[in-house]
Amino acid sequence: MHAISFIQDLAVIMLVAGVVTILFHRFKQPVVLGYIVAGFIIGPHTPPFGLIHDEETIKTLAELGVIFLMFCLGLEFSLRKLFKVGATAFIAAFMEITLMIWIGYEIGRWFDWNTMDSLFLGAILAISSTTIIVKALNDLKMKNERFAQLIFGVLIVEDILGIGIIALLSSIAVSGSVSPEEVFSTVGKLSLFMIVALVIGILLVPRVLAYVAKFESNEMLLITVLGLCFGFCLLVVKLEYSMVLGAFLIGAIMAESRQLLNIERLIEPVRDLFSAIFFVAIGLMLDPAILWEYALPIVVITCAVVLGKMLSCGLGAFIAGNDGRTSLRVGMGLSQIGEFSFIIAALGMTLQVTSSFLYPVAVAVSVLTTLMTPYLIRAADPLSLKLAQVMPNRVSRVFALYGEWLRSIQPQGEGALLAAMIRKILLQVGVNLALVIAIFFAGGYFAPRIADYLQGWVMKSSWQNGLIWGAALLLSLPFLIAAYRKLKALSMLLAEMGVKPEMAGRHTQRVRRVIAEVIPILSLLVIFLLLSALSASILPTNELLIVIAVVAAGVAAVLWRWFVRIHTRMQVALLETLDNHKETGH
Amino acid sequence: MHAISFIQDLAVIMLVAGVVTILFHRFKQPVVLGYIVAGFIIGPHTPPFGLIHDEETIKTLAELGVIFLMFCLGLEFSLRKLFKVGATAFIAAFMEITLMIWIGYEIGRWFDWNTMDSLFLGAILAISSTTIIVKALNDLKMKNERFAQLIFGVLIVEDILGIGIIALLSSIAVSGSVSPEEVFSTVGKLSLFMIVALVIGILLVPRVLAYVAKFESNEMLLITVLGLCFGFCLLVVKLEYSMVLGAFLIGAIMAESRQLLNIERLIEPVRDLFSAIFFVAIGLMLDPAILWEYALPIVVITCAVVLGKMLSCGLGAFIAGNDGRTSLRVGMGLSQIGEFSFIIAALGMTLQVTSSFLYPVAVAVSVLTTLMTPYLIRAADPLSLKLAQVMPNRVSRVFALYGEWLRSIQPQGEGALLAAMIRKILLQVGVNLALVIAIFFAGGYFAPRIADYLQGWVMKSSWQNGLIWGAALLLSLPFLIAAYRKLKALSMLLAEMGVKPEMAGRHTQRVRRVIAEVIPILSLLVIFLLLSALSASILPTNELLIVIAVVAAGVAAVLWRWFVRIHTRMQVALLETLDNHKETGH
Repeated sequence: MHAISFIQDLAVIMLVAGVVTILFHRFKQPVVLGYIVAGFIIGPHTPPFGLIHDEETIKTLAELGVIFLMFCLGLEFSLRKLFKVGATAFIAAFMEITLMIWIGYEIGRWFDWNTMDSLFLGAILAISSTTIIVKALNDLKMKNERFAQLIFGVLIVEDILGIGIIALLSSIAVSGSVSPEEVFSTVGKLSLFMIVALVIGILLVPRVLAYVAKFESNEMLLITVLGLCFGFCLLVVKLEYSMVLGAFLIGAIMAESRQLLNIERLIEPVRDLFSAIFFVAIGLMLDPAILWEYALPIVVITCAVVLGKMLSCGLGAFIAGNDGRTSLRVGMGLSQIGEFSFIIAALGMTLQVTSSFLYPVAVAVSVLTTLMTPYLIRAADPLSLKLAQVMPNRVSRVFALYGEWLRSIQPQGEGALLAAMIRKILLQVGVNLALVIAIFFAGGYFAPRIADYLQGWVMKSSWQNGLIWGAALLLSLPFLIAAYRKLKALSMLLAEMGVKPEMAGRHTQRVRRVIAEVIPILSLLVIFLLLSALSASILPTNELLIVIAVVAAGVAAVLWRWFVRIHTRMQVALLETLDNHKETGH
Repeated sequence: MHAISFIQDLAVIMLVAGVVTILFHRFKQPVVLGYIVAGFIIGPHTPPFGLIHDEETIKTLAELGVIFLMFCLGLEFSLRKLFKVGATAFIAAFMEITLMIWIGYEIGRWFDWNTMDSLFLGAILAISSTTIIVKALNDLKMKNERFAQLIFGVLIVEDILGIGIIALLSSIAVSGSVSPEEVFSTVGKLSLFMIVALVIGILLVPRVLAYVAKFESNEMLLITVLGLCFGFCLLVVKLEYSMVLGAFLIGAIMAESRQLLNIERLIEPVRDLFSAIFFVAIGLMLDPAILWEYALPIVVITCAVVLGKMLSCGLGAFIAGNDGRTSLRVGMGLSQIGEFSFIIAALGMTLQVTSSFLYPVAVAVSVLTTLMTPYLIRAADPLSLKLAQVMPNRVSRVFALYGEWLRSIQPQGEGALLAAMIRKILLQVGVNLALVIAIFFAGGYFAPRIADYLQGWVMKSSWQNGLIWGAALLLSLPFLIAAYRKLKALSMLLAEMGVKPEMAGRHTQRVRRVIAEVIPILSLLVIFLLLSALSASILPTNELLIVIAVVAAGVAAVLWRWFVRIHTRMQVALLETLDNHKETGH
């Protein structure tokens, strides 16, 4: 049978991985390191040589491992958690990622590596390893302390930013250069895609899963979950994003399903199987000769990772208002790189833009920093005490003052409530506009095909465009109306706050009403201009545009309440899914 | 990325399989059929064509599916269950398999198929489908009725016999002919291998699993289980047996572990994933043109399966002493073919001894008989009433008499106890002798390599053989001594029963003692002759043989009690594992 060599590979991988991970577990080291070492042992560069025969199939399965890893990361992500993480997480993650990309790039240039290698090195160093940190905090029994919660928040933000980095790197690798417009357009499109995918996904997927779960068959639930997962990955690939992004997104969507616990229980063994293959496959690529050759860069990069992350994350946490001790612990907990780095390094290899030494170097740095992680976490507390002792009194007073000042400027009571309301309205307007933009994008994307279709009835190309544009506008109406209503509410709020009777006297009411009417109409106009620019390819002639606008206005006026009702129903469905409590599995 | 076409295949498989199985589930048909239909739909022979790109990888994964299917069958098998199934199961399974192989072969010949096709057809028809039956009985809520328990017993025996059939077919396919000696030798070697593997496996594997389970990591347990599973499959392949056998055996070994429930919970999603791929891959191969061309054979074989199994299993159950109604229900419940048939058909294809039409025909017959299964089970009761009505009074009285006669000849009270004791002793002697034979076989197998090793110290080849043979004998001593002791106990029992004081008068005691001494020594002599014949390749010269025998006798005499103690300890360990109650998972 053809499969025998493949089974032999699997047998070798699982046996060696099993033995090595048991040893690692006994010596309290992460299992992931065990897999990498197992791969190193059975790899082609170390004796006994050539234990793996069908490397191609193993690599294919390893890519499945990446998909399942990211899918499970998505399952653990959940939008609710993202909404809950505080400013600390955003500030620390953002500082960490920008600083580490810059440090990585500079180190690469310093070693005379080419631009792409340096850029990928920066990206490789940017994101810390959820797997390793969770493991280490678990082992140290510190999972429930405040700094650990902050770290988890940072990791969640990092996941999202990491997904963005992967999308950016893919587009940069294809075009070969970095231009600000391109970065802006990539990030914009990516955010748009993610918002639309999340909204539609959360409306549809949990319903499908709830339907399938009614049959009470684990097998069918698993097959459905896998079908949706791979199917979505495929869709994402067709849109020229990375499969990794797709796996993460569909995981985040399924995290909102009531069947989450059941899905996690079913998918975990599958993930463990394939991610073991993934990590072993990483070890397979390690060549001692290369590691030796690049020993200096490895040491330098390792120090840069530990110090850079400590500094950036710690400072970020401190700026966001945490005390010095907590900030230091956050920074030292995040001082390593892991699975995301492997994925980014693999991306560079498969896109064939990075040199072959980058992957082993990344793995070596990850191994070293991973080994240090538990010690760093444990060392954070004594170090912070020491620092407090040696720090000049004046400096520490400045630090304390900063914290007090920060707390004093934070909105409190009614102000905080108002800020939360405004934030919520802006979020809703944003989501609605994203959906509208997505509809027009889709119109532009499918325009040639629809035009082919219309050929039989409508001959003139301008009329075809007019029809497509009009249809897109019609589809967008519920969301536009919703955005308009939200904007109106917002401007009323602002008018109420901004125009005080003491200033406007007896005109107060009128000024307020004018402001409340003018702002949303102005914003809608801006939106229309934006839409016209974005859908330039299918924009009809001006005359037609006016006709369409009049028709749309008429439709909106007549069906206003119906549109509002439809939109409310969708919104309720979405929020219901998001607010659902999880079943405890069966 | 290379993996994209593969992910696309997986996405298509899972999506279509998901939708189709949900439909099948709604219409109360087995999920397995849904997979096959899904494969048929996305297959290359039906529109839309060519949805699968990387058929090679899919087939490799499908073979993993077979391994996991058989592994889980093994997990559900368990020796304890085999010891508990009654005579009914053995008689019915044996009758079914012989009759169905014969019917299948004759049908093949009748359609002018060649010998191999006909033989494989017979094997394909021999074994019923556990998956389908369990599903149908579950749906009909009949799982706890007596006939259902009998059916499960038959299925367990069928599994073992099916494993034997696969081994036999492999060896026949290689040699190209069927000779009685070959069948005998294959079956003998297979039984020997299975006994040895089970004894050693049950001594070692549950201990390894218990050790790993202490770490309380599902991931490590899963990886260890997979490593042992694939590793054992590989060992079995090296011994030139089918991987299927290995997967089943290691499953049966792990079924004796305390971690069984945990293992099942972890392995189920993995099995579901790969077995879905396996069944879809079966559907992929279905070509409507071939099905149409072979419509007549398909119909004929389907009728033969239903009637043949009904008759053979029903008759078998009746002969073993069940009433007519129960026997008919057993027969009609077993009237289908399933996963084992696919595995045998696939074996024929990969060994390249069967024609390409055989697989689709087998699948079509399986689909048809599977669809009929629930109706047949439901029809069994009315049919038995009908038969009882139309049957001439005299015939039914003969049937009733047979049942009474059978009950009358069954040993009861003390007799039954004695029979059980004798059976147990014979089983123990058999297991010990199997181990001894295995040791000598292993000696013969490794003799050339050991001889190479000895070259430096011992020059003469006859001396080398003598050393190897002597070492094998030394290793066998504990088992030989145990066998001798059991045989002595048996002969004392027999002497006690056979030599009554009424016959032998005052010589009773002496005759008894003579018999009790002579029988075991005679048996040991026979065993030695057998061993010498089996290890002919390494048998030393007669002079050496005598020396070895004397030395062995001396060692045995001196270390008798030590050997007994060692053997007892092993036996206790084995029985402890077998008698362990399962944990309820954590």
